[in-house]
Amino acid sequence: MVEIIVAPNAGFCFGVKRAVKLAEESSSFTRKGVRVYTLGPIIHNPQEVRRLASKGVKPLEGEELKEGDAIIIRSHGIPPDKERELRKRGLRVIDATCPYVKAVHEAVCKLSEEGYFIVLVGEKNHPEVIGTLGYLRECGGEGIVVESLEDLKEAFKYEKVGVVSQTTQSEKFFKEVVGELALWVKELKVINTICNATSVRQEDVYRIAPEVDVMIIIGGKNSGNTRRLYNISKSLNPNSYHIETAEELDPSWFEGVKKVGITAGASTPDWIIESVRGKIEEICRELSYCS
Amino acid sequence: MVEIIVAPNAGFCFGVKRAVKLAEESSSFTRKGVRVYTLGPIIHNPQEVRRLASKGVKPLEGEELKEGDAIIIRSHGIPPDKERELRKRGLRVIDATCPYVKAVHEAVCKLSEEGYFIVLVGEKNHPEVIGTLGYLRECGGEGIVVESLEDLKEAFKYEKVGVVSQTTQSEKFFKEVVGELALWVKELKVINTICNATSVRQEDVYRIAPEVDVMIIIGGKNSGNTRRLYNISKSLNPNSYHIETAEELDPSWFEGVKKVGITAGASTPDWIIESVRGKIEEICRELSYCS
Repeated sequence: MVEIIVAPNAGFCFGVKRAVKLAEESSSFTRKGVRVYTLGPIIHNPQEVRRLASKGVKPLEGEELKEGDAIIIRSHGIPPDKERELRKRGLRVIDATCPYVKAVHEAVCKLSEEGYFIVLVGEKNHPEVIGTLGYLRECGGEGIVVESLEDLKEAFKYEKVGVVSQTTQSEKFFKEVVGELALWVKELKVINTICNATSVRQEDVYRIAPEVDVMIIIGGKNSGNTRRLYNISKSLNPNSYHIETAEELDPSWFEGVKKVGITAGASTPDWIIESVRGKIEEICRELSYCS
Repeated sequence: MVEIIVAPNAGFCFGVKRAVKLAEESSSFTRKGVRVYTLGPIIHNPQEVRRLASKGVKPLEGEELKEGDAIIIRSHGIPPDKERELRKRGLRVIDATCPYVKAVHEAVCKLSEEGYFIVLVGEKNHPEVIGTLGYLRECGGEGIVVESLEDLKEAFKYEKVGVVSQTTQSEKFFKEVVGELALWVKELKVINTICNATSVRQEDVYRIAPEVDVMIIIGGKNSGNTRRLYNISKSLNPNSYHIETAEELDPSWFEGVKKVGITAGASTPDWIIESVRGKIEEICRELSYCS
């Protein structure tokens, strides 16, 4: 029988998987007549949002919330005053804030308490950044969001500067900011809060692709992170294929094959990965193609 | 009468000036029959070393020290066990360690006590670095000296890394090291211990050169830092001249001149600067050249 290895970090990152799981579990409330909403789309994948909506868990879109409704905070998190407001209104709050994002909230407060002015490297309008700034205000800290080196100048007048980053920040810019700051301020403390989901997803491919006969990469043809996974795989194993859905699997790829590897880009839900695994097993079983 | 402005940061840096002054003051001991030595040449300027030797303050060169001799620790500093050993032998220890170097000693111990593994950016065989490593050992800390990015790998396995630098470290490499570390370790604390003597010396020229009629830059023709001062000056004031000694001053430079600026590279002792100032005054007085 063919052996199929699914990369442990395929598809959604840990925080998104967790949020989707919490949303899925919350759908049970709807059977008790409770309305369940997510505060914004729980993930940037319309198929997955539709799937959850079919189970009764929908993004809040202007509906008036009432006491007893359940509201899910998505992985990005929200400012603490917003969360308190939801609780005050008698809503059931389900907190799916990514633990790595919670770590950023804790880091800015820890650094503030130690007397550091905060530099948060990230996008000013990103919901995660807005949430983190809320925590910074709450613990009485001061700081700025840095999107460009121009923004950074404001921090040069402080003696002690603490740096954290949006979890999805690019490493390149983060490195530039930290290097520049080190020259200007007297004392710099950096807590690297960049999430390594993208790099571990790639590391999986470096490890698995050379070990298998065929490597399948699932994800949008226009998804940058998926294409990078495919390019890495192709460089290590010529029998690498980039597909969007199980329908694109070609039985001829699996002739005489013993081991198949599967991975997927960041916006691919687990059920699409599972359908690809199932389809490969079916091909091997029905056509006795695989060894 | 001509106005002469000597740049406040001309010539020796603060730490070297202080060490030379302490050496000069110590020469009074010789009148009481005490032998006075410096632990290595007090500065990298043979003329100045000779001048101090003529006052009885000589670099130790294999002489056997005996109780009651005075020994001057130069601006680079030495490891604390070495200093204790000198004191134990009954020597008068005159500590001319630069206060900015003392700040590095304190920084490595503070960071170690806070649980950081130390990265000291600097040259492995530099006396300042050897002294700092002695202080790090003394306070029970652990760390490495980083001369190249290759050296840095050793630090990646630590969760908490603290960075300091040799006071004369280049900013460019320091920035690279800090940026790289920020991506690899969980928590990074940086105390920037680079001395700004070079940059303030240049800032003086940016400020003074455009304000004067003639700008004189003193220093070795093969001294890189002096040539940089000259190039900055020339770009701001075409009447800029690079000389090594007062003898090179050309009276024709000062015809009708009201204001003269003077600065000097890092290895130029004050007395050479003063002799240039005196010579310019003489030219102006004797030839009634200057307004």
